[in-house]
Amino acid sequence: MKKVKEIYRTVSTKPTIVSRNVHIKEIVEMLLEDPITRSVYVVDDGRIVGIITVLHLLKVSGYRFFGIFPKPENVLKDLEVITAKTAEEIMMKPLWVTPETPISDALKIMIDNDVQELPVVDETGRIIGDLSSLEVLNALWRE
Amino acid sequence: MKKVKEIYRTVSTKPTIVSRNVHIKEIVEMLLEDPITRSVYVVDDGRIVGIITVLHLLKVSGYRFFGIFPKPENVLKDLEVITAKTAEEIMMKPLWVTPETPISDALKIMIDNDVQELPVVDETGRIIGDLSSLEVLNALWRE
Repeated sequence: MKKVKEIYRTVSTKPTIVSRNVHIKEIVEMLLEDPITRSVYVVDDGRIVGIITVLHLLKVSGYRFFGIFPKPENVLKDLEVITAKTAEEIMMKPLWVTPETPISDALKIMIDNDVQELPVVDETGRIIGDLSSLEVLNALWRE
Repeated sequence: MKKVKEIYRTVSTKPTIVSRNVHIKEIVEMLLEDPITRSVYVVDDGRIVGIITVLHLLKVSGYRFFGIFPKPENVLKDLEVITAKTAEEIMMKPLWVTPETPISDALKIMIDNDVQELPVVDETGRIIGDLSSLEVLNALWRE
């Protein structure tokens, strides 16, 4: 089976990395500069400590600007996220793949976490790239 | 409050439209050609009949190629989707906004349905554009 290293540079080439204290406004700015991006990686001392997805940002924004709550079955899961006030609080637990991760494992992580883009880390935990859902779909359906 | 018509052309300009009988392989091809896209709109006789998101395609692909099931709490909701065999069966119920939809309503539709991009339709139901989640985030956080 194909591994992450064979596909992760075909669509998305540059991971979007921020530090813990960055403001949501800056994150939105970075997403607009590189609109292929759907996940931002929070890094501390060179290591990944969290992920912020566009779906998360939509929920935070809905609550902050309009008091919109997610649908009932998601409230428990989402409450912590939508009431967060700092960028660090918004992030989800870190997720990642390595160049040696089989595509099936990467896909399962995406499906289980509703994440469309994952950081690729080396053996020391440093982010060396990112894996887009489009790269996975391409590897599966077009080859 | 701002309406959809004021923001929907700022990031994503071209909706990705397919007919009912198009193969998943072709949909993946279209996504790769325009990698900003995260939703494909299924149209019949000029009217929207369904939406296919990248998250949906990941679930379909996980099941089809590796037998991966979504996490237990999502199985009932997702079962119909992941076992679908034709492109028409893969689509979710149609969702849309109009140019006059307030941004808060558009955001709520995105949050409630885990959708990052919605078709913009005119009063006759024809698709005239699409609204990207990045356009919504931009309108809320940067202005």
